[in-house]
Amino acid sequence: MADTINTDETNALIASNKVEGTTVYNVRGERIGTINNFMVDKISGQAEYAVLQFGGFLGIGADYYPIPWNILSYDVEQGGYVVDIDKDRLDAAPRYSDQEPSFDAQYNQQVYSYYGVN
Amino acid sequence: MADTINTDETNALIASNKVEGTTVYNVRGERIGTINNFMVDKISGQAEYAVLQFGGFLGIGADYYPIPWNILSYDVEQGGYVVDIDKDRLDAAPRYSDQEPSFDAQYNQQVYSYYGVN
Repeated sequence: MADTINTDETNALIASNKVEGTTVYNVRGERIGTINNFMVDKISGQAEYAVLQFGGFLGIGADYYPIPWNILSYDVEQGGYVVDIDKDRLDAAPRYSDQEPSFDAQYNQQVYSYYGVN
Repeated sequence: MADTINTDETNALIASNKVEGTTVYNVRGERIGTINNFMVDKISGQAEYAVLQFGGFLGIGADYYPIPWNILSYDVEQGGYVVDIDKDRLDAAPRYSDQEPSFDAQYNQQVYSYYGVN
């Protein structure tokens, strides 16, 4: 019953501001960063990228890695997202620091093909 | 070019944390609230609801109105979202205050049918 549940997620849905800040692990259980935010198609409402934040201190000097939404999975036991990306693979992944990319078609293709997603 | 643009949105995409806090107007240009957050399908990444916050002070006593994502449109000139909902119609709309609903199928149907969306 709704009045006994104080939740910002359900089986199916999660609140945008709960996604932000969630820890991301690789499949070996190593922490690789946190979700800074995610990029949503304005019209359709489809989440295209989660932006993984790694490194830096209080947001200064951090790197941001756009990751296709559909390679994220949520692990209830770890309480975080799991992606099948090793640290070595992340080292060579598309990233930005101060300036966000334009997320145009060319950039999209670069990211999606890096992660083997169409 | 990407290195000349410092943006958290593009023509097509917007950052989740930029959606949050954005002002919402009705079609007569009256401010009806702000987007508190939005609810996303965990698996598909589809945004189902934007949660309109209205009333209260510093988040205390505010009411939250889940609104189907696809009835929101963004108005560049106003710098906010526009929905075709009068204040009278909002008065009777599904809402919650302290306790979030479970957003189950029954609740979804209630909200979507209130706004005439399938």
